[in-house]
Amino acid sequence: MKLKLLGEAEDELSKGRLEAFSDGVLAIIITIMVLELKVPAGATFEALRPVVPVFLSYVLSFIFLGIYWNNHHHLFQAVQHVNGKILWANLHLLFWLSLTPVATAWMGADFNSWPVAMYGTILLGAACAYFILVRALLAHHGRESTLARAVGRDVKGRISIVLYVVAIILAFWRPVFACSLYVAVVIMWLVPDRRIEKILE
Amino acid sequence: MKLKLLGEAEDELSKGRLEAFSDGVLAIIITIMVLELKVPAGATFEALRPVVPVFLSYVLSFIFLGIYWNNHHHLFQAVQHVNGKILWANLHLLFWLSLTPVATAWMGADFNSWPVAMYGTILLGAACAYFILVRALLAHHGRESTLARAVGRDVKGRISIVLYVVAIILAFWRPVFACSLYVAVVIMWLVPDRRIEKILE
Amino acid sequence: MKLKLLGEAEDELSKGRLEAFSDGVLAIIITIMVLELKVPAGATFEALRPVVPVFLSYVLSFIFLGIYWNNHHHLFQAVQHVNGKILWANLHLLFWLSLTPVATAWMGADFNSWPVAMYGTILLGAACAYFILVRALLAHHGRESTLARAVGRDVKGRISIVLYVVAIILAFWRPVFACSLYVAVVIMWLVPDRRIEKILE
Amino acid sequence: MKLKLLGEAEDELSKGRLEAFSDGVLAIIITIMVLELKVPAGATFEALRPVVPVFLSYVLSFIFLGIYWNNHHHLFQAVQHVNGKILWANLHLLFWLSLTPVATAWMGADFNSWPVAMYGTILLGAACAYFILVRALLAHHGRESTLARAVGRDVKGRISIVLYVVAIILAFWRPVFACSLYVAVVIMWLVPDRRIEKILE
Repeated sequence: MKLKLLGEAEDELSKGRLEAFSDGVLAIIITIMVLELKVPAGATFEALRPVVPVFLSYVLSFIFLGIYWNNHHHLFQAVQHVNGKILWANLHLLFWLSLTPVATAWMGADFNSWPVAMYGTILLGAACAYFILVRALLAHHGRESTLARAVGRDVKGRISIVLYVVAIILAFWRPVFACSLYVAVVIMWLVPDRRIEKILE
Repeated sequence: MKLKLLGEAEDELSKGRLEAFSDGVLAIIITIMVLELKVPAGATFEALRPVVPVFLSYVLSFIFLGIYWNNHHHLFQAVQHVNGKILWANLHLLFWLSLTPVATAWMGADFNSWPVAMYGTILLGAACAYFILVRALLAHHGRESTLARAVGRDVKGRISIVLYVVAIILAFWRPVFACSLYVAVVIMWLVPDRRIEKILE
Repeated sequence: MKLKLLGEAEDELSKGRLEAFSDGVLAIIITIMVLELKVPAGATFEALRPVVPVFLSYVLSFIFLGIYWNNHHHLFQAVQHVNGKILWANLHLLFWLSLTPVATAWMGADFNSWPVAMYGTILLGAACAYFILVRALLAHHGRESTLARAVGRDVKGRISIVLYVVAIILAFWRPVFACSLYVAVVIMWLVPDRRIEKILE
Repeated sequence: MKLKLLGEAEDELSKGRLEAFSDGVLAIIITIMVLELKVPAGATFEALRPVVPVFLSYVLSFIFLGIYWNNHHHLFQAVQHVNGKILWANLHLLFWLSLTPVATAWMGADFNSWPVAMYGTILLGAACAYFILVRALLAHHGRESTLARAVGRDVKGRISIVLYVVAIILAFWRPVFACSLYVAVVIMWLVPDRRIEKILE
């Protein structure tokens, strides 16, 4: 069935459902992480202590997913139409993001080399998937489109990928250093953009 | 990528996806709390008894989240456009609300000082986040906008914050008093509005 | 904040977000029930056997929720505008429906008087909430509206409520009879409508 | 209430809510599977090993659900209007898809005849449900509609059903062979369509 639709009406696919589906998946991922926050075993302040590292991992992942939702929102604002490849590039991104809750919970439970490296691997996968999604969109819209001008050179995206790779390696030496790099990436995306761009140029 | 989009087309961001995403997250939070309602261990009426306090916490949180969804709905009815700051202020609100299920479950399991105070802290965080969101929207729309007239002095919002602070302190003395204040806030928001406003003035 | 919005723009609230939120909650409830289907303990056919009653409860609840989604969809097709009361009547309906997964799991785990009666109570609550929602909508649209003509006398809704009450009482005598009544209600809603209407008149 | 609405305004039901609800359910199913990925018990690479088969099942199901979402998206792109039968045919499809997470988890936990055959049964159920949905849509739109031309002979859909039946039988002899057939179906749907069509003709 996909056969002829793809052939005839490829460019007419509406972006609305892609946005709605992505919003749905992101909303669920972001909320599902809460399920990993176990109810403390007891009604004392001490009972809260083992929850703290899990909570901090949760906050970190919440902001990461928030950044992705934000960027996805901005990106598709400039998108005109989508095709089958873009649908799959988007699903690929959602796949990596859907692994965030498990990685978050593992890092929160065991702050050691493998869990921290795994967390970075998921972030790296998501960053690469986002990069591929942007390329698929650009290939579909052309180099002169509003989208192409809006995306620009995507400096932050490239820096993030490099920092994740460094962090994954560092995780086997000092997990704390790896985690600091994750936080650095978060801050880079949150800080008002122009100042960073000026610093970089 | 966000860089130039934010610079050039800041005001054109559609509020539609923000609403859809918020609806998604709120729908999930409200439903996820049900997962905390464990299946009773046995087929007797007695088996239902330990479920009762968890159930009552669930009802309370359901109404709280319902009020937030209601107010969010009313608020964005008057909103014209959004920007990056507003997206983040909204995510900040969703962050606090996403902690409701855990806090609800903890209070339902152990009706004691710390869980009850923690529940109030989450409510306080959400109330402050809502306050910040409203300020961000007002800053973007101007003092003469329909939004500004609709928001008014936001008496209920301010009273809620004060009551939460009092409740958190009371929780360490008598948890029941703290919980009564939470119920009082709920009633304040549910009761038809004009009567309360008259009482207050 | 709700104060003045409700006063000035009561009739202008869009039904779009109410539909989207209800769809979200229903989609989550219907899917969350799957979480109660535990992975069988072993790779044999026998391992599937204890899952069977849980599965049948799941199928029953799936159809019930499907009927509610279907009716909600048809109902709001004829709705023009909503107000604060309708938002809350709708949340009240979602509240009862959100309890379906727990009730389903309890009935699936222990097919006895209390769980079966509890399941009927949840269904009864949902049916009454739906009835209230319809009244709130009628009060807002007037007796001459398309909505009023579409709703008609709502025979099925009234019969359902009666059957639930009977079933809850029967559950304490013979749970199987109660369950048969639940199935009867499902069939009544699924069978093409005109034939039933003729039978009834 | 459905009575008269179905009679008078049958063709006017909007497809928007059906799409939104389906997107919601699919988004939740796809994300809920992640909950089956348990946090590894320990911070070593070895702790990851028992997670690998579960993870691979997850990837397989993720792609299957992605294909369904994709095809659903393409299919409804050509749909003009829906009726009560189509709503139920769609819910029937969602029912089978909602069973994917449990089947995935069982197959991931015990790679043996029954779990693998059960996984195939769920896929078969979903494929048949999709087939029925397409027929219901065709019956509503007529043989000369854009939809009818877009669907064509639905070769892939028919082949999939045959392969699933073969796989379910094979599962009792060699589960690996069954699983290879599932992967073959996935590849058939992912590979660019025209080439496959040429091969088949």
